[in-house]
Order: sequence, then structure tokens, then C-alpha cells
Amino acid sequence: MTELPTNWPHYVIGIVLYPGMTTLDVVGPQTVFAGFPNVDIHRVWKTTEPVTGDDGMVMVPDTTFADCPPVDVICIGGGRGQSVVIDDAELLDFLKSQGEKAKFVTSVCGGSEFLAKAGLLEGYRAATHWAARPLLAKLGVEVGTERVVIDRNRMTGGGVTAGIDFGLTVAEALYGEDVAKISQLLMEYDPAPPHNVGSPEKAGPELVEKAMQYMTQTMGAAL
Amino acid sequence: MTELPTNWPHYVIGIVLYPGMTTLDVVGPQTVFAGFPNVDIHRVWKTTEPVTGDDGMVMVPDTTFADCPPVDVICIGGGRGQSVVIDDAELLDFLKSQGEKAKFVTSVCGGSEFLAKAGLLEGYRAATHWAARPLLAKLGVEVGTERVVIDRNRMTGGGVTAGIDFGLTVAEALYGEDVAKISQLLMEYDPAPPHNVGSPEKAGPELVEKAMQYMTQTMGAAL
Repeated sequence: MTELPTNWPHYVIGIVLYPGMTTLDVVGPQTVFAGFPNVDIHRVWKTTEPVTGDDGMVMVPDTTFADCPPVDVICIGGGRGQSVVIDDAELLDFLKSQGEKAKFVTSVCGGSEFLAKAGLLEGYRAATHWAARPLLAKLGVEVGTERVVIDRNRMTGGGVTAGIDFGLTVAEALYGEDVAKISQLLMEYDPAPPHNVGSPEKAGPELVEKAMQYMTQTMGAAL
Repeated sequence: MTELPTNWPHYVIGIVLYPGMTTLDVVGPQTVFAGFPNVDIHRVWKTTEPVTGDDGMVMVPDTTFADCPPVDVICIGGGRGQSVVIDDAELLDFLKSQGEKAKFVTSVCGGSEFLAKAGLLEGYRAATHWAARPLLAKLGVEVGTERVVIDRNRMTGGGVTAGIDFGLTVAEALYGEDVAKISQLLMEYDPAPPHNVGSPEKAGPELVEKAMQYMTQTMGAAL
């Protein structure tokens, strides 16, 4: 067997946490990133006070915007609470200043809306949650419906669980195919969804309508 | 279109958080559970002091063992730090007392080892992370290699990302097929792994060996 290298390149990754985020959007890729052989991960927000995700998980950021070093990969997810902070100047300034220098500018789910608002998707194609496609298009972004969209150094994942496929794509871009494959195996990513209804195209219009009704009924808010 | 019901049954779900856990193990199913129409979720540990996952995420439990009401579903995940707490009497007592009365006794990844240690898997089949199968077998559990194993009221998922398939299985058991399908669609769970290497059988022995080497090299610890 060929041995793995030991002189891995070093990367700094910034993941934005914010109140109302969908925890899984970023925990998916974070699980891949945290396994990298030579990496520093910063979980970034305005302060290091705890934030609560839209699934109720309370998380503690470890780095403030002010203290965050330049990152190689900047990543932000979506969430039911994103509309509250979508125009936050401090957040958008942080994304813009990091994004202009980062090796990869990335998002999962509705996170691409933040990138668009920060001016980082002008002239780029990007993915988002299926229910948020019209919103992203309104911001002048060419919306891709693939699970992961790569356009030059912009890498964006579709809704929620697409963050796992996105994370593995980043792994391959940073460390090569071996690490991407190893990461997938260690996460036992051999999916077996009980039904074949994971996209609006596969689900069909009736289930899509039910899903919107369910979301309104159970959370009182659309994505 | 048939309308969704509005008189949903109420369930209480307990998710154990602990230091060194794999965050994604439980954030996968938690994303499904948090969307349920009539649910209380308790993130439980000995205290409500923050705990750090093996991916570096700092999470704050909201309920102590002492304050946790009887739950309908008890769930615990695995993690690189699980060996530190695997014989913790307070944790095992909590699992045992909740598990004896719960509607469903569940785990994701290496979490089934806790259930076994708490005496909740005697005479049951259960799943675990592929790398932990020998360990679970040593505890006298019949190990299933399916992604989700259901044996009477024990529902156990395989490694890490299997928590999503597991969560959707619980959704169907508690609320029926419509809710399971809607949950899958809202999470856009239409997986497209970049490679076909998500299980040891599909990855083959050389990649499995590399993965073990990578894990040792990058974390200094096996699962």
C-alpha cells in the first residue's frame, strides 16, 4: 500500500455561526474539515456568546470577527433565522473582507444569500436550498440546481444535507482524492434514504406543497 | 391535496451530549426531530456546562440528567472521546432508567456501545460505526451491518452520517410516512457522494487501511 504523506499543507477555515442558523448546514462539512491532517478551524461570530440554531442546539463561537485571522476557506450556512441577520453590516463586511482574499468562498443551503449580499457572487453561479432558489435569483445570482456548484473559487452546496457532499468536495480540492475518499469512509457516507423524495423534482408538486404547509404549521416561518 | 392533520401526537425526545462526542451523529437526527410538529427535545448531560465535540464544536446542554423528564425517545451518538465516559455510572444509570420506559431506545454510530453497557441491548441486534463492529460484538450484541437496524423498539444507526437515515426512520415510526417524506425533502436529502466508498465493503481493504492510518495520524486516536 502507498503510504499517506506526512507533510500535509496547512489551511485555516472560518465557519460562521449565527442565531437561527441550521446547525446541520455547517456541522456536515465541519465533520470533514475537523478530520483534516493540518488545519485550524475558527467558529466565528460577532462575540463568543452562545448562539442558538434553528434546531435548538446552543453553540459557542470560539472566535470573534475582530480576532479572526485571514482564512483560506470561508463558509456560512443558511437557517430559518437568517432573514434576521441577512443585512447585518458587520457580518457582510466580515464576509466581504475575508472572501476577497480567501482561497475558497463557500456556503451551504441559504448561506449563498449572505455571499450574494456581501457582493461575492456577482457573475457567479451558486447553489442554495431548493425553496430559496427564487430568492437567490432575485439577488442577481445564476442559480445552479446541482447538489454542489463550483464556479472558479466559489463552492456552494444545496440544502442542509448537501453540506456533506460539499464538505467532501472541499476535501478533494484542498487535499486530493485520497483524503476525500478516506473522509467519506470515516463518516460512513453510504446513504440509504428511506424514500426517493430528496429534491422537489423527485418529490413532485403535491409533496412540495405539503412540505411548505408542514413548515408553516410547525415553525410559523418559511425558509 | 389531502391536508395535513393538525392534532399531532406529542413526544419528548432526549439527546445525550457529552465531551468528545461526534457532533454530526446527533445533529443529523436532531434536524429531523426539531422539525416535528409537536415535540420537546432535551439535550441532556450531567450539568449544563458546555461540552466540546470531537469536531471542536462547543455545545451547551439544556437539561441535566436529574431534571430530565421521562422521554419517549432516548438517543446517544458515538465519538472519538466516548472511551473516556463509556463506563460512567451516572450516564449509564440515566440511559438505563430512561431506556426501560422509553417508546424507542436509540443510538447512532458508536452510541450503541453505551446502550450495551447500560444493559439495553441484551438479546437485541444493533448497528454501529463499521470500525466499532468488533467492539460491539465483544459486548455480546448481535451486530447488524445495515445502515439502520430496527429490532423491536431498539433503533440504531451506523456510522456518523447514518444518523440522517436513522432520523428519518424515527420520523416514520412516530408520525408516519408523510412526515418522513416531508422531512427528507426539507433537508434536501438527495445524496450524491463524490465517490462510491462509503462503507468498508465498497471502499475495499486498501482504502480501509489508509483510513485507519489517516485517523491515527490526524487524531492520535482510533474510534
